[in-house]
Amino acid sequence: MSVTSELARYVVEARPDALPDAVRREAMRAVLHLIGCAIGGCRHATVEAALAALGDFAGKPQAGLVGRRERLDVLNAALIDGIASHVLDFDDTHATCFVHPSGPVACALLPLAEYVDVSGADFLNAFVLGVEVECRIAKAVIPAHYEIGWHLTGTAGVFGAAAAAGKLLGLDRQRMVWALGIAATQSAGLRESFGSMCKSLHSGRAAQNGLSAALLARQGFTAAEQGIEGKRGFAHVTSTTQNFAAITDGLGQSFELMRNTYKPFACGLVVHPTIDACLRLRAAHGLTEPQIERVDVAVHPIVLELTAKRTPRTGLEGKFSVFHSAAIALIDGDAQEPQYSDARVTDPAVAGLTARVQASADPKMHKEAATVTVTLRDGRRVETHVAHAVGSLQHPMSDAQIDAKVRGLAADVIGAERTEALIALCRDLWDRPDAGAAGRAAAAC
Amino acid sequence: MSVTSELARYVVEARPDALPDAVRREAMRAVLHLIGCAIGGCRHATVEAALAALGDFAGKPQAGLVGRRERLDVLNAALIDGIASHVLDFDDTHATCFVHPSGPVACALLPLAEYVDVSGADFLNAFVLGVEVECRIAKAVIPAHYEIGWHLTGTAGVFGAAAAAGKLLGLDRQRMVWALGIAATQSAGLRESFGSMCKSLHSGRAAQNGLSAALLARQGFTAAEQGIEGKRGFAHVTSTTQNFAAITDGLGQSFELMRNTYKPFACGLVVHPTIDACLRLRAAHGLTEPQIERVDVAVHPIVLELTAKRTPRTGLEGKFSVFHSAAIALIDGDAQEPQYSDARVTDPAVAGLTARVQASADPKMHKEAATVTVTLRDGRRVETHVAHAVGSLQHPMSDAQIDAKVRGLAADVIGAERTEALIALCRDLWDRPDAGAAGRAAAAC
Repeated sequence: MSVTSELARYVVEARPDALPDAVRREAMRAVLHLIGCAIGGCRHATVEAALAALGDFAGKPQAGLVGRRERLDVLNAALIDGIASHVLDFDDTHATCFVHPSGPVACALLPLAEYVDVSGADFLNAFVLGVEVECRIAKAVIPAHYEIGWHLTGTAGVFGAAAAAGKLLGLDRQRMVWALGIAATQSAGLRESFGSMCKSLHSGRAAQNGLSAALLARQGFTAAEQGIEGKRGFAHVTSTTQNFAAITDGLGQSFELMRNTYKPFACGLVVHPTIDACLRLRAAHGLTEPQIERVDVAVHPIVLELTAKRTPRTGLEGKFSVFHSAAIALIDGDAQEPQYSDARVTDPAVAGLTARVQASADPKMHKEAATVTVTLRDGRRVETHVAHAVGSLQHPMSDAQIDAKVRGLAADVIGAERTEALIALCRDLWDRPDAGAAGRAAAAC
Repeated sequence: MSVTSELARYVVEARPDALPDAVRREAMRAVLHLIGCAIGGCRHATVEAALAALGDFAGKPQAGLVGRRERLDVLNAALIDGIASHVLDFDDTHATCFVHPSGPVACALLPLAEYVDVSGADFLNAFVLGVEVECRIAKAVIPAHYEIGWHLTGTAGVFGAAAAAGKLLGLDRQRMVWALGIAATQSAGLRESFGSMCKSLHSGRAAQNGLSAALLARQGFTAAEQGIEGKRGFAHVTSTTQNFAAITDGLGQSFELMRNTYKPFACGLVVHPTIDACLRLRAAHGLTEPQIERVDVAVHPIVLELTAKRTPRTGLEGKFSVFHSAAIALIDGDAQEPQYSDARVTDPAVAGLTARVQASADPKMHKEAATVTVTLRDGRRVETHVAHAVGSLQHPMSDAQIDAKVRGLAADVIGAERTEALIALCRDLWDRPDAGAAGRAAAAC
């Protein structure tokens, strides 16, 4: 049996009641987290530019936009939500396969669920399957595909969106094969785009084109039968290596969603262990800025390669400063967007402590680890070692931490009351009869 | 200066009055021919499936569809027209670079010209520039890019559509660079899709996504500065060889549109020399079927590899039969869609002559050549040799032949009167103040 056909069979046959409880729970966490990230990004200049450029060509108001008041046709809503979900670089990351998995899949499903009748359980099952498809296809072509220059959230994401949307639309196996084939022939996204608005466009187009693939296939629009593994299909054309067993082995037994991770802090992952250690010391010892004489940080060398900005002057520079990140974590007890504002970076007390942070590279230190030593003015020294920072696979964010992250991203955009209702709804989504409620709850009113 | 930037500079600065007369004339021929092909394809099952799948998500009726009564938003009109233009495999072909150039470019421009005010001269100038961009980018990566499995009408077409639409929208150089970068990061289309409805989807998505790239860039949506030549840009990611001089050498001096060719007959190019020879013999000697004892055809070996269907039973099989093609050309004096109907293939007189056609492969014969010998029942033998079939670069279709092809494709769809008006309008397009008239004339009423 061919790879595309076998994958299609699995997606078509997989039932919600076959999902393990842990996977079901992770799906609800991932969807809530993704919606939070999209709300946080929904007013970004990238989203505004896309809406200004394309809004006049959108169709009927079939679905809401996450975090916004506009309603667009389902396909354009998927595009805009997808851009918003990735624009802050704060969305989820699969631990091993380079994909930010939830954006393309959830942003295809959220507007679609406002357009067709679908239960929460079916919605979450489709979400899990979409993540499964995109991550397995990614695993079949990494690392060569990535090293060549492809951005997997775009190139693999479109398959995930197609599979998930096709599942919600109830495609049969032949049509699911076509949906994957239509996805394959639209797969795109270059790493050359990193640093420009096009990086988040990849997530949006993956959602939109994947959804479009499923809609086309439903109408009998034909595609290659072996879109993934064919001689001139996705895997051979876009990669020099192919591991098709990664796609077909253990379907229904293991779930890629269980290797998903979430970023607790609004900066690059490399700074996370330092922040985590500072937060632990602050909490354990009730530290306040005036008490602190100096801070010594020992980290993996990559941290100083990427985030050695000694005296940041803007919020953005603050994200590239392990010194500011340590200082602000100790002072504010957090490291979210407010901690990376221009005002906080240049605040005298913050800048003063930033100047008293020293960092050293330790080649023996793991990337997820850090040791932080705080010397107090009273002469005491307190120290802690973090082996795996919060947010890593070994130390995942708790439900409460994800809720808090979503609150931080969403409350200023859609209001505190709607944010709490959204959190409650997502936590309860499996048992809801109408998954369209998620998209409606995520929109601004 | 970088490749993308240099190409963008040329497109932004190129003025209509700098176009040589021959290029201007070829642009009008190409646009008319493309519209004819799209009208001919506009009721194909592929187009109907796409409209059924996506129509409910389309926006305001901003532009007509070629050959049809519906009006859609500009972006969806570009998609549907692009599919229609390529679905019969009857559109134009660049003689050396694997691209069907007019579809992606014209199908972005036609709806856009109904949305913004643009003169015929500006429209045709943008068309020429779009063709220039896509063919030069194709030349920079062939043959490796094609051999890897990419379909250039999709992968290069999106650049042509972006450049042409960007020109109509008056983008400055920076924004044109971004439009090309947004095109690069959406470039897609696998040869694995050949034989399915997705082949023509490539032309439609190229038109739609290229147009979308120009609209995004106009609003300041940023992209890679070196989308074509960057280390992880289009050329390096999708090909193992790069010839950037093919993009930047002689801009404004030579025009790729002058190497464009049009197919006179509704079948594969390999059968064209045989048909051409049969038509010449029929015209020169007033041949009729009852006179003919037998027909001997000498052709390049590829002809018998691809079109050796000895006893075709359907119109489609007739396209893969050099025997039927010779017979029908001698009997009907043409080889259009009506000659490849099921009825004509199984007609006793046609099938009888088909059985009396013999074909032999001659390795010394050029692909564009054929020798046909007709033995008459009265004992005479008449023979002709075609060195370059009509439709080749050396023997292009005349204006009258293009007009006749368009009539054959369009008259049954939009009516004879509208077809004549369309032909007249396209022949006069350069001097028309409103290029939107082309799209309106091409629609059904």
